[in-house]
Amino acid sequence: MSAYAELMAFQRQTEALAQIAGRLGWDQETMMPAGAAEQRAEEIAALETVLHARRSDPRLAGWIEDAVALDEVSHANLRLIRRQHDRAVRVPAHLAAEIARVTSLAQGIWAGARRSEDVAAFLPILSDVVRLRREEGQALARGGDPYDALLAGYEPGTTTGQLQAMFGALRPRLVALRAAVLEAPEPAPLRGTFPEAGQIALATEIARAFGYDLNRGRIDKAVHPFSSGSGNDVRITTRTDPADPFNCLYSTIHEVGHAAYEQGVAGVHLLTPVGQGASMGVHESQSRILENQIGRSRAFTGWIFGRMRSLFGDFGIDSAEAFHRAVNRVARGYIRTEADEVQYNLHVLLRFDLEQALMRGDLTTGDLEAAWNDRFRSDFGYAVDRPSNGVLQDVHWAVGLFGYFPTYTLGNVHAGCLHAAMRHDLPDLDADLARGDPSRAMQWLRARVHQHGSLRLPRATIAHATGHDPDEGPLLDYLEAKFTDLYAL
Amino acid sequence: MSAYAELMAFQRQTEALAQIAGRLGWDQETMMPAGAAEQRAEEIAALETVLHARRSDPRLAGWIEDAVALDEVSHANLRLIRRQHDRAVRVPAHLAAEIARVTSLAQGIWAGARRSEDVAAFLPILSDVVRLRREEGQALARGGDPYDALLAGYEPGTTTGQLQAMFGALRPRLVALRAAVLEAPEPAPLRGTFPEAGQIALATEIARAFGYDLNRGRIDKAVHPFSSGSGNDVRITTRTDPADPFNCLYSTIHEVGHAAYEQGVAGVHLLTPVGQGASMGVHESQSRILENQIGRSRAFTGWIFGRMRSLFGDFGIDSAEAFHRAVNRVARGYIRTEADEVQYNLHVLLRFDLEQALMRGDLTTGDLEAAWNDRFRSDFGYAVDRPSNGVLQDVHWAVGLFGYFPTYTLGNVHAGCLHAAMRHDLPDLDADLARGDPSRAMQWLRARVHQHGSLRLPRATIAHATGHDPDEGPLLDYLEAKFTDLYAL
Repeated sequence: MSAYAELMAFQRQTEALAQIAGRLGWDQETMMPAGAAEQRAEEIAALETVLHARRSDPRLAGWIEDAVALDEVSHANLRLIRRQHDRAVRVPAHLAAEIARVTSLAQGIWAGARRSEDVAAFLPILSDVVRLRREEGQALARGGDPYDALLAGYEPGTTTGQLQAMFGALRPRLVALRAAVLEAPEPAPLRGTFPEAGQIALATEIARAFGYDLNRGRIDKAVHPFSSGSGNDVRITTRTDPADPFNCLYSTIHEVGHAAYEQGVAGVHLLTPVGQGASMGVHESQSRILENQIGRSRAFTGWIFGRMRSLFGDFGIDSAEAFHRAVNRVARGYIRTEADEVQYNLHVLLRFDLEQALMRGDLTTGDLEAAWNDRFRSDFGYAVDRPSNGVLQDVHWAVGLFGYFPTYTLGNVHAGCLHAAMRHDLPDLDADLARGDPSRAMQWLRARVHQHGSLRLPRATIAHATGHDPDEGPLLDYLEAKFTDLYAL
Repeated sequence: MSAYAELMAFQRQTEALAQIAGRLGWDQETMMPAGAAEQRAEEIAALETVLHARRSDPRLAGWIEDAVALDEVSHANLRLIRRQHDRAVRVPAHLAAEIARVTSLAQGIWAGARRSEDVAAFLPILSDVVRLRREEGQALARGGDPYDALLAGYEPGTTTGQLQAMFGALRPRLVALRAAVLEAPEPAPLRGTFPEAGQIALATEIARAFGYDLNRGRIDKAVHPFSSGSGNDVRITTRTDPADPFNCLYSTIHEVGHAAYEQGVAGVHLLTPVGQGASMGVHESQSRILENQIGRSRAFTGWIFGRMRSLFGDFGIDSAEAFHRAVNRVARGYIRTEADEVQYNLHVLLRFDLEQALMRGDLTTGDLEAAWNDRFRSDFGYAVDRPSNGVLQDVHWAVGLFGYFPTYTLGNVHAGCLHAAMRHDLPDLDADLARGDPSRAMQWLRARVHQHGSLRLPRATIAHATGHDPDEGPLLDYLEAKFTDLYAL
């Protein structure tokens, strides 16, 4: 057997075990009985120990050195395995296991603290998570910046400095747009209650319309919507709010964007490093283009309006145009996942700056809530009213995802680029969307992005799909045009 | 760190990984999308490869040799680890992985073949499973009997010959009892339909009454009811038949018997070898004493009768006594899991003899259906009408469980012993059961059996609980007394 074949046989088992770890995460959020939390933490730690041992296995270096890449795919697989190995050998096994154990525990503690609005109950374990991930970042960075090193785990080939520059270019135009929109008259909101069964039924109908294959996936409820798994077992979760059907519908479309990406990778890449999305930022572009540029378009909301009228009767909105404005309503709020397209990135930038400070030791967890609340008041103009609307709203830090938040805004930037290219190629797409049929958009994404998985680096993935390097211009142009029109600015 | 401490730290991770493997099995039967079957087979094979490597790890032999058992618990843990290690080193890693992969695949194929009554669709993969497990049995037996070696995996310290002798003593008195009962007038069956929601609600109420802790477990639906997991995550499944509520209720009580055993092991044994049921036969005694000796008693069925009347209204049975007869109705049938206490063991003996022949090469899978049907006609007096009522009714052989079936009858024998001892200690138990309260029976089982886990060998576990070595006498005495009374023989 060639060195490459040996390497890939070994790696295939590692990928399979990583899928199992992902499924345990899914189970924990959807099915696991509450009393199993501590035992589960120990189970996940054991599996992470196995994964870490495989990723830092001493045989890998030799195989990687001897392996010959005969084509683009094997070249990419070698690149990805080498990167994973380089990162794994820098992190001691006991640290990897401890991170897995503590973050598994922290998730349940966060959920309890969020329910009872009790920041203090969350801080001790958050301090442990911050300390452990900082230690990991330092081990990875070998004298460099720990935050940069953690970011590279989600977005290979991107530095904190690059993101700061991009976000710096975004901010003034977003701030100006937000100010103008919030001075205009507010659109009417939906009224009434929307039974859970109807929301789930419509969300499932829309998920199917976007090509989500329920023979290779499933939809369940969870506190925080997420997508999980690769290949032929890609599951999503959603949540329902009887007063706000958009929470369920648009979080479902969002997670379907992630899931369709994973389901759309060519089958030949199954359980190989290439067989997954290229990065969190590219992943987020798939969820956001479905959720926003397509899902919140005038054409597609026109179709959703009809379906909602037939499912829920009268809900206080009497035209497709008023419904489109309600879907795209910009209003005061606290929650990132419920934020409109104009304000969303301001939520992300807040977290991006705070988590850099936490990782660099410039901010302690004891000061985190105050720092959050100060920054929020400064950016949004009003105070956080309770922790579940502030520092306790996201699960990310509880599970150790430092360096992850900025990939949300990067995803929006990528979605802007992809959307401009897609509309150029499919000038009559709106006629399809008005019939509730996004299949040509999905075919475009599958051909340009999904099927290739991690064949190319993240920026090259977007450049391959659009014909040019990604930049923030198309997203800003799209947002300004859309909201100037909607709010008659 | 002492050799024993090192060994136990290593073993603890192995136990945690084994819990994960069990959870994947649960997921496959309850949640997994159908299209994930092949990928899942590969995932399970990867995890089984890891488990096998750990169980045959060369360091174990040294640790086991150097370890000093300071008390009864450490002595038992050493015995269990040594036994697992001895078995693991006899089975080549590639064979263990192949068995995991093929049995994972076979499960889905069996379910499809059962749905479409298509034995031929199942035979090719069954042949693979038989060949692989036979190969494993031969590797384990090292020249001895392969079936004996597989049986020892489920029932340590018990030989095929011992079971043949015990079953030989059971058979004549069961055959005589069955003949007498089937000549007597048949009790009236239930009439009407029983909505699924009501069945699940009552099953859950009964599960709680038997002490099943839903904070450390959950109940889902599956084709074949089962219990899964140890410690603080012990899940059960059930199924419903709108015409036959006893299917759901009594399969739930049965699985609660298994689950309460695992949940009842003392917490100090969590994720150690002692921290699980002592054997399949002892496990089955816990499920059967709840299902039959307690659950089908006159006192407890009187309480169920009242609950069913209030949930389902009139179902054609007008007294608790008639209901007790309906619950314990002995009638012609095909399905082991639906069989009454009189005939159940005849179903098991059929499988016991056929699987011995398969494992010894005296019977091919091509001849299996005919052999099943011949034996069935000879034991039961009428022909199998379709494969789902015959050779396709049980999942066991698809998942490779050769040597497992006889532990069902052994469990009934043990249940007979335990029940006699329990009634001696709790002479007024029926007054509790008539109120739907089996808690004193559960306390007795917890104190005598559950809390000790695998501290003692299977026969010693029963002897410790009852004060004498297990034998088939109490089961036969109980059955003859109960059915002579019920059928006025």
